[in-house]
Amino acid sequence: MTGFVYQMPTKIISGRDCLTGRGELLRPLGKKALIVTGRSSSENGALADAVTALRNNGREFSVFDGVRPNPTLDCVQAGAEQARKTGAEFVVGIGGGSALDAAKAVAVLARQPRPDEEIFSGGWSEDVLPVAAVPTTAGTGSEVTQYAVLTNDFAKTKTSISSPAFFPKLAFLDGKYMLGLGRAVTVNTAADALSHAVEGMFTLRSTPLSDLAALESVRILFSLFPKLEEENFRLSCEDRDELLYASMLAGTVIAQSGTTAVHAMGYPLTYHHGTPHGEANGILLGEMLALCAERLPERTEKILAAAGLKTTGEFKAALKRVLRSDAAYTREELERYAREAAKNPKLAGVTYRPDEEDLLRIYLESGLVKKEGTGAGV
Amino acid sequence: MTGFVYQMPTKIISGRDCLTGRGELLRPLGKKALIVTGRSSSENGALADAVTALRNNGREFSVFDGVRPNPTLDCVQAGAEQARKTGAEFVVGIGGGSALDAAKAVAVLARQPRPDEEIFSGGWSEDVLPVAAVPTTAGTGSEVTQYAVLTNDFAKTKTSISSPAFFPKLAFLDGKYMLGLGRAVTVNTAADALSHAVEGMFTLRSTPLSDLAALESVRILFSLFPKLEEENFRLSCEDRDELLYASMLAGTVIAQSGTTAVHAMGYPLTYHHGTPHGEANGILLGEMLALCAERLPERTEKILAAAGLKTTGEFKAALKRVLRSDAAYTREELERYAREAAKNPKLAGVTYRPDEEDLLRIYLESGLVKKEGTGAGV
Repeated sequence: MTGFVYQMPTKIISGRDCLTGRGELLRPLGKKALIVTGRSSSENGALADAVTALRNNGREFSVFDGVRPNPTLDCVQAGAEQARKTGAEFVVGIGGGSALDAAKAVAVLARQPRPDEEIFSGGWSEDVLPVAAVPTTAGTGSEVTQYAVLTNDFAKTKTSISSPAFFPKLAFLDGKYMLGLGRAVTVNTAADALSHAVEGMFTLRSTPLSDLAALESVRILFSLFPKLEEENFRLSCEDRDELLYASMLAGTVIAQSGTTAVHAMGYPLTYHHGTPHGEANGILLGEMLALCAERLPERTEKILAAAGLKTTGEFKAALKRVLRSDAAYTREELERYAREAAKNPKLAGVTYRPDEEDLLRIYLESGLVKKEGTGAGV
Repeated sequence: MTGFVYQMPTKIISGRDCLTGRGELLRPLGKKALIVTGRSSSENGALADAVTALRNNGREFSVFDGVRPNPTLDCVQAGAEQARKTGAEFVVGIGGGSALDAAKAVAVLARQPRPDEEIFSGGWSEDVLPVAAVPTTAGTGSEVTQYAVLTNDFAKTKTSISSPAFFPKLAFLDGKYMLGLGRAVTVNTAADALSHAVEGMFTLRSTPLSDLAALESVRILFSLFPKLEEENFRLSCEDRDELLYASMLAGTVIAQSGTTAVHAMGYPLTYHHGTPHGEANGILLGEMLALCAERLPERTEKILAAAGLKTTGEFKAALKRVLRSDAAYTREELERYAREAAKNPKLAGVTYRPDEEDLLRIYLESGLVKKEGTGAGV
């Protein structure tokens, strides 16, 4: 066993109605909350449950519902401003990865204000508002990580800020908030979770503990793939719980390892083309695993075994059936993204570091080049 | 998936020379340490490494090496007194379960002094000295739990005190400190770890996350059983790392679930007869699993599969070969312990609650009754 460091301090509360049922756990976080969320949480019931939990436990709160996908610095600065003005002592983040990441950024900026141009320069102290996270999608695992991914207009991509102080204190997992999610969001976020689990196993900071979580996450996600493949799928509340649990497990993986090559390659597809984050990862993951299979066959075998598959070709095909992506880019764009991704610091952490040629091969072999006559760049 | 709560906030640092190599992690804990340990840590190198780590990082310290097995209230009160007198800001616990449990008790009593008669009455606040734990045996998992088991002369048994605030902040895992451990300590502590993993799967507070850890712990421990069975075994440093890792995993299990029936039955054997804690658990565990197999066959199957076994009889036989225990008690004693254990609050948490008859059956079927002519009570 090689040495490792492992940490996952977030207390996880899982189960139906756990937010209202175990709302007393919010009390030690403070007397006044800022709820940070997007707009959908008012529809899926999560915001109402948070309000109930806070009221039942005698906690005041205000709501900042200005979070949009891929949160901007303007957004998190405004949230932090509201936290300071209202005297919030803790933050309740409700939503998908964007809302939870925004909540974490708000929690730190509320206590450690910084101008935009210094936000990505690190060096955060421990002084942050405590965060309770209520995920309403099953993909990012943000509820159990120390990262907040923000839109970085300086670098024209998405960049994460991080500190051990950013780990949420509490994560409430309840699949019922996801019952209304459509096919695209569900499969894209599941692909995001899968890419966390798989990428995390090919990093220098992977640990025996996180590998255990990664393989269990892969096992659970692939056990749900047959349902996810259906056009008009019906997922039960228990299926949603399983997806959420698998996503949380994968979150504990990247809390150790960070994300690496797939995310480095996926971010420009999201930044420049609006390809949803999970889809961007999912369409690249199969080919990345094929590359890893050549260099690190033993780990690849473990992943395939957990997925119940024999070959990386089957892995790629299964993802394709689930994602049904029609994302496409010009060859010139992909060449540029490969060149940029090869310089991404995220690549430093991988067990086998792919070079620009490897990355371009992944883009091209993933079938992402626009066919003739389908648009610009042909 | 049924609801659950999971928490394991301890940061784990594992690997050869991790204490000296990653000693900078001690810095945020405070400027002055109290080292709490027994006498053996001066022989296995752990104390010297702790001293090096503290000195290299500019931390003052004093040493309290008064911990003996099954620590008494006198012991932890004396340690707390020393912590207060020396102005210790954090505690470094080094040793087996006794030393680590004593370190945790010292850390809380240093900040929250109490007379002996109030120590077992609960209600601890968050105000404790932070603890770094350096285990030098692989069994208790104390380095990742919120418990401190102390000798309770009021109740004539061992009783644990606990609070989420007791979780060590850091656990340094290095198998090299265990290279000099003899057969008895090694197998007894391994049996303790195994009983944590197995017991934890039969509790109402078991979680999917802790089950994952429990089964992995069982798998690792049984993979080492062939080596542990040998009379003059030779365990490599890597084998010791594996045992320590399995023990830590099992510790994360009881951090969720607590210990239950096996521990409730084992404590009187330790308190009244000095049977080592791990041995006391190990000689009871096989029969307990046989009882569980009748009531909860599915969980039992998972445990047996992880162990690479087919029947609970094989499980019991494997433990017997490893432990080689000759512990024996009179039937009258066992009847009394069964009566007492049946009232132990630990039984409240088990999935199937054994009654006094069940407990006596476990004692008797475990082959613990003294043969005629072998001593008192015949």
